[in-house]
Amino acid sequence: MTANSSSQLWIYDTTLRDGTQREGLSVSTEDKLRIARRLDQLGIPFIEGGWPGANPKDVQFFWHLQEEPLSQAEIVAFCFTRRPNKIASEDPMIQAILAAGTRWVTIVGKSWDLQVTEGLKTTLAENLAMIQDTIDYLRSQGRRVIYDAEHWFDGYKHNRDYALQTLETAIASGAEWVTLCDTNGGALPHEITGIVRDVMQAIGQNRFQSPIPKLGIHAHNDSDTAVANTIAAVMAGARMVQGTINGYGERCGNANLCSLIPNLQLKLGYECLEDSKISHITEISRFVSEVVNLAPDEHAPFVGRSAFAHKGGLHVSAVERNPLTYEHIEPEKIGNRRRIVISEQAGVSNVLAKARTFGIELDKHNPKTGQILQRLKILEQEGYQFEAAEASFELLMREALGNRQPFFEIKGFQVHCDLVQGEETTSALATVKVAVSGRDILEAAEGNGPVAALDAALRKALVNFYPQIAEFELTDYKVRILNGHTGTAAKTRVLVESGNGHQRWTTVGVSTNILAASYQAVVEGLEYGLLLHSQAEMALIANS
Amino acid sequence: MTANSSSQLWIYDTTLRDGTQREGLSVSTEDKLRIARRLDQLGIPFIEGGWPGANPKDVQFFWHLQEEPLSQAEIVAFCFTRRPNKIASEDPMIQAILAAGTRWVTIVGKSWDLQVTEGLKTTLAENLAMIQDTIDYLRSQGRRVIYDAEHWFDGYKHNRDYALQTLETAIASGAEWVTLCDTNGGALPHEITGIVRDVMQAIGQNRFQSPIPKLGIHAHNDSDTAVANTIAAVMAGARMVQGTINGYGERCGNANLCSLIPNLQLKLGYECLEDSKISHITEISRFVSEVVNLAPDEHAPFVGRSAFAHKGGLHVSAVERNPLTYEHIEPEKIGNRRRIVISEQAGVSNVLAKARTFGIELDKHNPKTGQILQRLKILEQEGYQFEAAEASFELLMREALGNRQPFFEIKGFQVHCDLVQGEETTSALATVKVAVSGRDILEAAEGNGPVAALDAALRKALVNFYPQIAEFELTDYKVRILNGHTGTAAKTRVLVESGNGHQRWTTVGVSTNILAASYQAVVEGLEYGLLLHSQAEMALIANS
Repeated sequence: MTANSSSQLWIYDTTLRDGTQREGLSVSTEDKLRIARRLDQLGIPFIEGGWPGANPKDVQFFWHLQEEPLSQAEIVAFCFTRRPNKIASEDPMIQAILAAGTRWVTIVGKSWDLQVTEGLKTTLAENLAMIQDTIDYLRSQGRRVIYDAEHWFDGYKHNRDYALQTLETAIASGAEWVTLCDTNGGALPHEITGIVRDVMQAIGQNRFQSPIPKLGIHAHNDSDTAVANTIAAVMAGARMVQGTINGYGERCGNANLCSLIPNLQLKLGYECLEDSKISHITEISRFVSEVVNLAPDEHAPFVGRSAFAHKGGLHVSAVERNPLTYEHIEPEKIGNRRRIVISEQAGVSNVLAKARTFGIELDKHNPKTGQILQRLKILEQEGYQFEAAEASFELLMREALGNRQPFFEIKGFQVHCDLVQGEETTSALATVKVAVSGRDILEAAEGNGPVAALDAALRKALVNFYPQIAEFELTDYKVRILNGHTGTAAKTRVLVESGNGHQRWTTVGVSTNILAASYQAVVEGLEYGLLLHSQAEMALIANS
Repeated sequence: MTANSSSQLWIYDTTLRDGTQREGLSVSTEDKLRIARRLDQLGIPFIEGGWPGANPKDVQFFWHLQEEPLSQAEIVAFCFTRRPNKIASEDPMIQAILAAGTRWVTIVGKSWDLQVTEGLKTTLAENLAMIQDTIDYLRSQGRRVIYDAEHWFDGYKHNRDYALQTLETAIASGAEWVTLCDTNGGALPHEITGIVRDVMQAIGQNRFQSPIPKLGIHAHNDSDTAVANTIAAVMAGARMVQGTINGYGERCGNANLCSLIPNLQLKLGYECLEDSKISHITEISRFVSEVVNLAPDEHAPFVGRSAFAHKGGLHVSAVERNPLTYEHIEPEKIGNRRRIVISEQAGVSNVLAKARTFGIELDKHNPKTGQILQRLKILEQEGYQFEAAEASFELLMREALGNRQPFFEIKGFQVHCDLVQGEETTSALATVKVAVSGRDILEAAEGNGPVAALDAALRKALVNFYPQIAEFELTDYKVRILNGHTGTAAKTRVLVESGNGHQRWTTVGVSTNILAASYQAVVEGLEYGLLLHSQAEMALIANS
C-alpha cells in the first residue's frame, strides 16, 4: 500500500469499533462480518474491526476473518497502549491484539498532559514510555502500526510541546501513521486547520521516515462540524480519514464517511475510492443501517431518501430543466436518485436492472414492466422494502409475469401463546392447513416463540412433499416498527433471511400484526428455497 | 435595533418558513404561533413567519400576530421580487406581504445569471430592475428590508460581477441587510470564507450606507457542513445568521441554530442571545420537535439526549473526576444534562450515579449496590438493555431495595391469532387474569395485532381500579432480534415507550417469544405509569 499521488487519501472505517459505541446500537459477530465484507467490496483500505482485548465478541470476529480473510482491505485491531509501569509483552490486552492476527494494529495513547497525570495517574515520561514500548513490541512482532493520538486537539491547546512529543515518540517507535483525534468533538474547523498545519511543520517531512504525509484525522460530531473538521484537516495535509458509515458513534457520532467521501472525491478532487465504487455509497449506507437495525436518516446529506427530493411545481420544472439549479451534485454519482415528491417518479430502469440480475428478460416496452412498477409503488407505500428483500421482489416479478410456481397454498394458519405459566417457560403452538399436490395437510407444532412454531408447523406439513426443506434454515430475522409513534397499532416490517447451506435469500412481510408479517416472510422464504431447488434441478437436467 | 459591538450577531430564525419545507413536516397555524412565541421568549431578534403571498395558512398566521404581537422579536414576512416586466406596486404577492403588517420584510432575488436567463427567461437588466423596484416600493410603504440573494455562491462562481451587481442594487435600493444564500447547500467552508471576504471587500464599508457589517448567511446542509459554513461566514464578516431549530428544512435541512448558537456564543465569543437565555436551547429544540410531531434526534449535537451520554465504568469515573476530559462543553450551559448510560460495561459508579438521578439513596458500601450490579449483568447477558429503558431499571432497583409497589399481579395471559382468514383481515385475541386488590379479574380484548390485544386486555382489567390508566398511551414500540443468525429461535428484545401526557418512560422485555417480551415491557410500562402517578399524589399531599 503506497501513496501514488499527494491527492490520494486513505479511508479508515471504524464503524465496527467506534461506530458501535452509539447508544442503542448493538451488533452480533455475524452482523460485523457482513458489514466488513461490504466495506471490503467498496474498496475501503482500512477497516477497524474492534478491540479484541476488551470484548469477547471482537475476538470471535477476528478469528472468523483469519479463517476467511477479506479480499483487499486491511482489517485492523484496536487497543490502548500498555498500562503504566508494566511491560508491553506481558500485557494481556496487547497479547489479545496479536492473537487477532491482523497485519495492522491501531494503538491509542494519551496526548493531553492532564489526562496522563489525572486520568492515568502516572508521569508524563511514563506515558511516552508506554507509547514507545507498546509500538516497539508490536513492531518486533511484525505488526504495522497506526498511532491514534487521543484528545489531540485539547492536549495541543493545553501543552503543545508535550503533545508533539507523544507524536514524535510514536513515529520514532515505528508508527507509520499518526492520527490526530478530536475525542470530545469540541474543535471547530479553523482550529483544526491551524493545528494540523502546525503539526505538519513541527514534525514535518524531515522527521518522518518517509516523504509521504502520514497524518490522519479522527473527528467527532459534538460541535456539528465533524465533516468540515475532517475536510479542514485534509486540506491542511492529513491523508488518512477516519470515520464511520452514517456517522454512527458515541454521543453525537463520528465523522460521516457517506458525506466525506463524496465531498472529498467529487468536489475537492481527492482520491478515496475507485471511481466505479463511489456510486455504491448510498447502497452501503442503507445496507449498514439495515444490518444494525436503525432507521436510516431520510434527511442525511448525499445518501438520504430526501437528499434530492423536490417539492412544488415551479421548483420541479426548474430542476428538470437544469438540475444544477437545485442539486449540488448529480445524485446518480453516489447511487442516490432525484425524487419528485408530488408525482413520485419510480425508476423503470431500476426494475429492468433488477430483473436482469434475476435472469428475467424484461424490457421497458413490455406492459408488465409498468404493472410491476405500479405494484411495487403500492407495496412500498404500505411499508414493504425490497432493497434488502430481493427474494420477495423476484417472487413479485414472477407473479406479474405469470411464472410464479405454486409449490403449496396456505389455507389456514393459527397461533396460540400461553404467556404466564411458571413465568419463564412460555410456549407457542401453531396449526397450519396447507394444500400441496392436491391434498390438504393439517399439522401442528410447538416452538419457543410464535414464529418458531409457525415455521415448524409449516415445515412439518411440507417436508414429505419437498424433502429438501429439511436443509433450509432461518438464518436471520429482523423486525422494524414503522411509524413507531402510533405504538402497538403501528405497522411492522419483518425481514427473514433463509439459507440452504449454499445460498442465502431474504424475504419481507408487512402487517399491523407482527405475526402476520412474520408469517408472510417465513412462507415466502420457504417458497423461494423451493424455487432455487427446482432451478438447480433443471440446470442439472439441462447439463446432463 | 442597532449594533452595539462587532461581536454582536443577529439570529434570523426561518423554522416557520424554510423549516416547514422539510419532507414529512406539516404544521397548523396554531403550531406556528406556539413556536413563534417560544422563539420570541428565547430572544431571537428576527423570526421569519412565512410567505403570505403563497400560502393561505401564512396569511392567517400574520393576522393573528397583528392582533397579539410578539413582545420583542421582529416577525418577518417573506416574498420573491416582483415578476419580470410587471410593476411591484401591482404585484399581488407584494400586496400580500404588505397586508401581513410586519415592520420587516425579506425579499429574495436571483444572483445567478443562468437562473435569470434560463429560469426566469428574462434579461439580466430586468432582474436588477425587479430587485430595485420591489425594494423601492416596500421602502416607500415604510417597510425595512432584508434582501436574500438566492443561489449566491453558485452565482458568484459563475459570474462574480453580475452577482455583485445584484447585491449593490439591493443595497442602493435601501435593503438594510443582504443575505448570501447557499440555496443548493453545495458550498464548503473554505469557499464560503473566500467568497464572503471578497464580498466584504467588494461592497465593503464605503458602499454600505452604514459602517456596520450588514451581511447575512443562509446555509443548507446538503454537504453536511451547514454549521461550519455559517461559522466560516461569520468569521469572515457576516453578522446575520439564518437557520432553523433542529436544522429542519428542505432536503437535508438548513443550518441548525441549536448547534450554531452554542458554537458562536460559548466557543467563539459572539453575542447571539442573552446569557440567561442560552440555557433554554435544549428545551426549545425538544419543544419544537414535539409541536411539529417529529421524534427528536437523540444524537443531535448539544441538545440530543445522547449528546452528553457516557458509557463504560472507567470512562464514567473519569468524567465525574474531570468532565472536560469527555465533554467539550458543560451540558448545563445549554440546558442539557450528562447521562450515565447503563450498559454492558457498567460499573458500580454507573449504578450509583443512576440511582441518584432516580432520587434513590445508595452508596457503594451498601451490599444492595453489588446485588443490583450483579442482577444487571445477568440480565444484560440475557439480552436486556437498560440504556434506553430507564423505567425498567428503576423498577429493578426498587425490587432489590424492597420498595417496589405491587399494583397488580398477572396470573395468566394468553393470545390467539388467526392469520389466514381472507388474507388481509388477521385478528388477535388476548385474555388476561390479573389479581388486583385481592380480587381476580378475567378480561379479553381484540386488537389488530397480538401486542395491541394484550395491551387492551390488560387495561380493561385494570382501569376500574386505576382510572388514571385511561390517560396512559403506548407512544413507541421497538423490536430488536438478538443473535439474529439463529433465526426464529433467537431472543427478542422489545422496548416500549409509554406516556401520560406529561412524561414519557421506556420499559424493556426479553424472551425467545416475541409476545412474551412484548408482554413484559407492556406490563412494566403500566406499572411504572402507576408508580409515577402515586408519587405525584404523594407529592401533592406533602405540599398541601
